[in-house]
Amino acid sequence: MQKAIGIFDSGIGGLTVLKEIVAKLPQENIIYLGDTARVPYGIRSPETVTRYSFENTNFLLAQEIKMLVIACNTASAISLEAVKKEFPLPVIGVLEPGARAAVDATRTRRVGVIGTEATIGSGAYEKAIRRIAPEVVVHSHACPLFVSLAEEGWTDNDVAALVAEKYLAPFRGMDIDTLVLGCTHYPLLKQVIARVVGPGITLIDSAMETAKEVAQVLDRLKWKGNGQGAGARKFFVTDSPSRFEAIGKRFLGSISLAAEQVRVGGT
Amino acid sequence: MQKAIGIFDSGIGGLTVLKEIVAKLPQENIIYLGDTARVPYGIRSPETVTRYSFENTNFLLAQEIKMLVIACNTASAISLEAVKKEFPLPVIGVLEPGARAAVDATRTRRVGVIGTEATIGSGAYEKAIRRIAPEVVVHSHACPLFVSLAEEGWTDNDVAALVAEKYLAPFRGMDIDTLVLGCTHYPLLKQVIARVVGPGITLIDSAMETAKEVAQVLDRLKWKGNGQGAGARKFFVTDSPSRFEAIGKRFLGSISLAAEQVRVGGT
Repeated sequence: MQKAIGIFDSGIGGLTVLKEIVAKLPQENIIYLGDTARVPYGIRSPETVTRYSFENTNFLLAQEIKMLVIACNTASAISLEAVKKEFPLPVIGVLEPGARAAVDATRTRRVGVIGTEATIGSGAYEKAIRRIAPEVVVHSHACPLFVSLAEEGWTDNDVAALVAEKYLAPFRGMDIDTLVLGCTHYPLLKQVIARVVGPGITLIDSAMETAKEVAQVLDRLKWKGNGQGAGARKFFVTDSPSRFEAIGKRFLGSISLAAEQVRVGGT
Repeated sequence: MQKAIGIFDSGIGGLTVLKEIVAKLPQENIIYLGDTARVPYGIRSPETVTRYSFENTNFLLAQEIKMLVIACNTASAISLEAVKKEFPLPVIGVLEPGARAAVDATRTRRVGVIGTEATIGSGAYEKAIRRIAPEVVVHSHACPLFVSLAEEGWTDNDVAALVAEKYLAPFRGMDIDTLVLGCTHYPLLKQVIARVVGPGITLIDSAMETAKEVAQVLDRLKWKGNGQGAGARKFFVTDSPSRFEAIGKRFLGSISLAAEQVRVGGT
């Protein structure tokens, strides 16, 4: 089916999800919207995040998409159900795939989750994990500075290590063996997080899990491929593209990021 | 004159300015707007910051204000001139008062400036300082993580010290004797910044300087006081008030922060 997969994120972080979808489904057309005029969502109220999600979805629907991926943990945690109810197309968030992978991975049945203030405050990961496996104990902790570190490019220096030590200390002695990276920026800090938590703990990167789910849903619907060979990608942002293109390189490597600025909702 | 002083900021940081104005002018009515649905401005493009500034000004004008204070360094650096040109009332930014204080303070005629990406990128402090004293050499450096540290409440711990070391290292050996804290969040990190730069360097806090200028302008216009004794304060925010009220306490101490949520522009 020629229509594109629509992806939105609060800004740049969702590119980690796009990257995995491109790797898994190179023949899909993809339209990505980064709401860079209103990023970050992780410090906003649930009502505001939901309104922004609706506005982003309306913009992507106008671009003729066949499926929507909410590539932002905060927006997924807070607004996935509302978006599913409101809009008539398949919608996938990054939260459920990560929750499922965590349940599959844990042997101790104790899982840690880290994310933004809004994601952790919503309790959405805990609910999603408990829905799959009610016996699993979930410990959650907000790590707001990780986003700034990733955007600053300080992903593996002494500051990153010290911040990770501080944020991850509460998980010590809780017998978790699985830690969900519940924010799309966090995979950039994977190495330093892995070093701090040690080799006994599996890190769950929702980006990869989400890409698997996108492939499964397209398979099931027989909507895979664009019928024309290699997929095309189009990037939209709500603020000037220059910062998005510059920082996006850290996330995407070689994929071209030339983006067009658009107004969405009140941006 | 009974009308209020209108203050806007991208979010919470401008409360450092409000605090100084309240201390200096306790009889003024003040209306504060924190654009918490679109904070931070420091990572946005000049065009977007200017649009947000205009929308905030329009909202405050509708509240019948006698004067406008742009209590955000980014918005002052980028949009002060445009706002002055567009709107028919006295407008004061935080940048010029800070620049003047820096020129008064420096003996070596070498001044350092720290601020957000957008503020430093605009070169506005350098221009303002050079306009007053063309011989002064200005060294600028963006310190984006300081805002997140202040909001996280990590203002005087080992992470804050390490981040300050990293950001302020480029100023070593440049013979500056004055450092402008060119972002309203930074006064919260004053102690750690002072320790890192050492006793030979004067820190300029624009909040205090701006309050002085507000008093001078009201004096000159004979618009001082509200004619009714103690001033009233009213707070508006564009996202839910809860986070604003909670974090605002770190900035204001005892002043009551009960805020009302409003929509401004597209928030």
